[in-house]
Amino acid sequence: MNLTHPFSLDVWSRKQLAAVETALSTWVTADPVPALGWGAPQGLVQAMRYAVLDGGKRLRPLLALAAFEAVAAPDTPNHPSAALRAACAVELIHAYSLVHDDMPCMDNDVLRRGKPTVHVQFGEAGALLAGDALQALAFELLTPDDGSVPLAVQGRLCALLARAAGSTGMAGGQAIDLASVGQALNEQALRHMHQLKTGALLQASVMLGAACGQASDQARRALSGYGQALGLAFQVVDDVLDVTADSATLGKTAGKDADNDKPTYVSLMGLENSQRYAQDLLAQAHAALGASGLSNTAALAGLADMVVHRSH
Amino acid sequence: MNLTHPFSLDVWSRKQLAAVETALSTWVTADPVPALGWGAPQGLVQAMRYAVLDGGKRLRPLLALAAFEAVAAPDTPNHPSAALRAACAVELIHAYSLVHDDMPCMDNDVLRRGKPTVHVQFGEAGALLAGDALQALAFELLTPDDGSVPLAVQGRLCALLARAAGSTGMAGGQAIDLASVGQALNEQALRHMHQLKTGALLQASVMLGAACGQASDQARRALSGYGQALGLAFQVVDDVLDVTADSATLGKTAGKDADNDKPTYVSLMGLENSQRYAQDLLAQAHAALGASGLSNTAALAGLADMVVHRSH
Repeated sequence: MNLTHPFSLDVWSRKQLAAVETALSTWVTADPVPALGWGAPQGLVQAMRYAVLDGGKRLRPLLALAAFEAVAAPDTPNHPSAALRAACAVELIHAYSLVHDDMPCMDNDVLRRGKPTVHVQFGEAGALLAGDALQALAFELLTPDDGSVPLAVQGRLCALLARAAGSTGMAGGQAIDLASVGQALNEQALRHMHQLKTGALLQASVMLGAACGQASDQARRALSGYGQALGLAFQVVDDVLDVTADSATLGKTAGKDADNDKPTYVSLMGLENSQRYAQDLLAQAHAALGASGLSNTAALAGLADMVVHRSH
Repeated sequence: MNLTHPFSLDVWSRKQLAAVETALSTWVTADPVPALGWGAPQGLVQAMRYAVLDGGKRLRPLLALAAFEAVAAPDTPNHPSAALRAACAVELIHAYSLVHDDMPCMDNDVLRRGKPTVHVQFGEAGALLAGDALQALAFELLTPDDGSVPLAVQGRLCALLARAAGSTGMAGGQAIDLASVGQALNEQALRHMHQLKTGALLQASVMLGAACGQASDQARRALSGYGQALGLAFQVVDDVLDVTADSATLGKTAGKDADNDKPTYVSLMGLENSQRYAQDLLAQAHAALGASGLSNTAALAGLADMVVHRSH
């Protein structure tokens, strides 16, 4: 009797996503905090939930959970509830960045995922505060007082997330992006911008999951390489899809980057070279998993394939 | 020979403030991070430094350092560099909140401490990103990888700061404030708003310092009461000064709250009752210190006096 089933990313993802959606809906809440005697104000929570729930591919949570699964051996202490918290925390950071990015003083977008953006729905001040509160909530999720995440792991998780979100990570990348519209960036500068703007948080997703499973140094190094390759590939594929996909498939306006005179991999390297570069990065991601010494890496491998082969 | 000197808050504060200013200037930086090979972008860091350096009373850092001194016995493990990090982290949260508060979609203030506000100087997008990055940097400060703050303490500090900054703390209070302009708040609702908006972070300042010194349960409970009374007193005195001080002394427009039809303690309780309430809260703060079982509380006592007796 053969008990081995081939791994299905689809089945695995559906199970993880159900847990993530439930957890986000539970944790982004106006319910009173017993220790305080009050909860977050309803209006604020409404905007936060609008920004977070029912939307997005949840790539970052899936990366965190896949990395946790890869490193969490049955005989070492591991923290599945810590991994779920980390998965949701990184999604809150991603969600807050979209809320602030969409505001009139940034990209001035009025639609996201087919819905009015947060500032359209709740006003600019409401969007500003919802984003600010989501960032704080990410760190609240990582630091529960119920013993579900060991204190030392809490410190490690906050360190990873803060650096990925901050001025040498996501916020820094956005600042570079803002300063570089209409500028001629070379490939190195473009890569640096994306490494901060989207790469840092994608890589951190992987490292957060690994930290929850208390990965070995060898595994951590390998997963860091995997996360870096995946983060770069994500952006290269984004730029490729901006010219090859139509708006309907993409769910957003195709060709927008070129129209906005934004530097992209395609504008710098050409379409074919960009496609080849994405394949190279995918191979690097797989090679890193091979060098990790970990056996349970099917979900991480599948997510890398998905990132590079996606149609939107 | 008598070696006992009477405690001077002025002398003590000057010494602490020098350390805080130096630390903030060192930590809000574009210097490359060795592990990354890059630093934060210059433009972003400029805006962050503009928002943080050379300004403000630094009440929150002083509270954190005073609480640390009160609990850190010479024979227990204590972490002065942790306390300095906590002191600066809470100031970064305060600074980011001012940057976002001043933006056109919030209070639309163009001057702060006699200088153009951050969005006037660096643009709205620059202010938004600087605020976002300052919040992340606060958590970076609490989670260094150099061993200067034990990992378990890092987790505890992040937990305290995140809750004070987030939707059940500062951001929540701002949301209530936003929703209550022109509304008739009763005294309980007004107190709740201020408890979140300014009280939570002031109280957290005290608790962060206490956590760095690994306070006993008794001391922690007492300091929590001290911080709560001080946080409330701070706002009551603010409201009193808004009607009793002139604009020059205040450094901002006096009578602004009344003009904006904002509910205040004075508008609800009258001037005399508000002044009496502030004195009651000061007495509560002193009583809490008396019940703390701590001997080294002169700085905390002095800061409470200063908050209630200040002229601006």
